[in-house]
Formats: sequence, C-alpha cells, structure tokens
Amino acid sequence: MSGLDQQIAFLVESDRLNTVLRRNYTVAADRRENSAEHSWHVALTAMLLAEYSNQPVNIDRVVRMLLVHDLVEIDAGDTFIYDSVANISKEAREREAARRLFGLLPESQAGQLHELWDEFETKATPEAKFARAVDRFVAVLHNYATRGRGWKENGITRSRVLEVNQSVAEGSETLWAKIQEMTQEAVKRGDLIE
Amino acid sequence: MSGLDQQIAFLVESDRLNTVLRRNYTVAADRRENSAEHSWHVALTAMLLAEYSNQPVNIDRVVRMLLVHDLVEIDAGDTFIYDSVANISKEAREREAARRLFGLLPESQAGQLHELWDEFETKATPEAKFARAVDRFVAVLHNYATRGRGWKENGITRSRVLEVNQSVAEGSETLWAKIQEMTQEAVKRGDLIE
Repeated sequence: MSGLDQQIAFLVESDRLNTVLRRNYTVAADRRENSAEHSWHVALTAMLLAEYSNQPVNIDRVVRMLLVHDLVEIDAGDTFIYDSVANISKEAREREAARRLFGLLPESQAGQLHELWDEFETKATPEAKFARAVDRFVAVLHNYATRGRGWKENGITRSRVLEVNQSVAEGSETLWAKIQEMTQEAVKRGDLIE
Repeated sequence: MSGLDQQIAFLVESDRLNTVLRRNYTVAADRRENSAEHSWHVALTAMLLAEYSNQPVNIDRVVRMLLVHDLVEIDAGDTFIYDSVANISKEAREREAARRLFGLLPESQAGQLHELWDEFETKATPEAKFARAVDRFVAVLHNYATRGRGWKENGITRSRVLEVNQSVAEGSETLWAKIQEMTQEAVKRGDLIE
C-alpha cells in the first residue's frame, strides 16, 4: 500500500466520526450534534477566541489538536462528561482506539497524530490547556443557546456544570468567567437548575 | 456588545452550517453529508495530505481557509458543482453572505476572515490552490467510497467529473492522478458511467 493509499484508508475511516452522537444539541438543526460537526465548530471557535488564552499559544497547533481530539470516539464512543462511571474506563478505551486508528497511517504521520492527541489528553502544554478550555466552552455554549436542552434532559445542575468545567480557568480565565455568566443567566431564565 | 459577545453571536450563527446539505453522502452514516461535517473532514484531509501540494504551502493557513470556506452557504446554500446554471449566480449570493456573516465579528477579525475567504475564492495563492484541490478531492473520494451514490443520483459521467475537477492539477498533480485512478476504477466497478 502506498503512503497515499494508507492516508485515504484513514480518511475514509475518519468519516465515521459523523455517526458518533454527543449529548448536546445543534443550535439550529434541532437534533443532537455529532462529533464531526463538533470538531469543526470547536476548531473554528479556537481560531476566533485565541486572544483569550491565559498564556501565548501557537493557535495553529491548537486547531490541529482539536481536529483530531475526538477521532478516538469512532471506536470508544462519546463519553458524557457528567457520567462519572463511564469516565473511569474512558482512558483505556480511548488509548486502544488511538493505537488502532492512527496505526492506519504511515508511521511518521501516525506518530505526529498520536503526539497531538497525547498532548491534548495530558494537558501538558499551554496549547492543550487552551484547546481543552475551548472544547468545554462550546459544550456550555450549545446548551446555553438551546435553552439548556442537554442539561435538562440529563438533570444537570449549575453547580455540577461549574464543578466539571472549572479546569477551563487553567486555559482561559475569560472563558471561565463567561461560563459562570452564561450559567447564571440560564438559571434566571429557568433553563438550568441552581 | 463586547468583542467576546460579538464572537459568540457569530459562533452561534455558524452552527447553522449543520443544516446545509451537500449532494454527496457520508461514507458510514448512509445519508447526505452536511457542510459542517465536510468542513471538518476537508481540514483534516489537508493537514494529512500537505506533502502532495505542487508548491510549498503554509498548511496551517490552508486549514484555516478550509474551516471558513463554506460558511457563506449558511445564507447562499450549497451550489452543486455540476449545476452550471446555479453556478452563474453563486458568486453574487456568496459575496453578500460573506458580508453579512463576517460582519457579525469585531472589525479586525471580520477583515481576516474575509481575506481568507477571498483568497480561497480567487485562487490567488499556492495555499488557495491546494485548499481547492483538497476540497474537490474529498468530494470525489466520498463518491468513490459510497459506490458512486452521488454520481448515480445526479447522472454524472466520468468525463464530466474529470472536466469539472481538472483544476485539482493546479494544486496537486498527485491528487489529480489519484482522481483519474479512482474514477477509472469506479467505471470498472459499474459505479460511474464512462
């Protein structure tokens, strides 16, 4: 198999990210968002909100990280961040998925993608911290913009949202402040339980 | 409105790209692909196939260009590349859409996005030429990987595919050769009319 044929096999396999459903809703389509749509939206968000990173970051690396960060869900599924039990097995499931999926690529490229994914998972760099902050921020934004639809369906309270998302502050104090503001507003509108 | 609030308004509006359906199919989900999913997949593809650009490119700029290239479809809809009539009015419709959508952002950022989109549209740089080549390549790949489903539904022939996509060679001779190979193979399998 040529390098290009390996890359094509990987790209065809990647397209399955369309079939992984998240818990939150698309703003306009009135259905749950899939992880491919999310990956696009979060990469665009990072590109536009770079100025709010606590530390200077290479935003292109953040974007690349976000384009690959959910690929492991093709095998491991989306793990709901508010599901403490599923989050225990998440790491092992995703590590195995990364091994299989990135392994479809030519060796040096497989290594590069694995490195990007590892960096995101281990929050090792300012880039990873900001990427994770943006990833959490868009999830809250989608809930906020759909009148708390995902929160309501899963009985999530404001204190749980703040508890689970407090690490956003490590990447961006500004986005963390905005999450506090949006969730407060959501409570006032009756879209989120205090 | 603060800068962040303007950016959030733009991001919420952007999410509507989920509702724009393309003519080609997702490989695994057995339904038409939407433009948000496509935007993710094409950005990932560019990132992985950078080595096949005819000229050296700043691949991060290509990725950013591809993340925003279809946003105008929120207002203007997806224009089928094989529809010659619709393609006449495409430019004016998309220009108006760009003005409205990017205009939601703080001024300097609106300018940056407009510039990226213009560069893509006018094929002004090696980055734009490669971005367009990859954009066309993934459309052919999706057809190839779904046994020509989009081609069959729209009565597209191989000579029409090659005619419409020949500009891929300006960005990447390698991807152009692969398109010729894939379409030849598709004809052999009975998935595409000669």
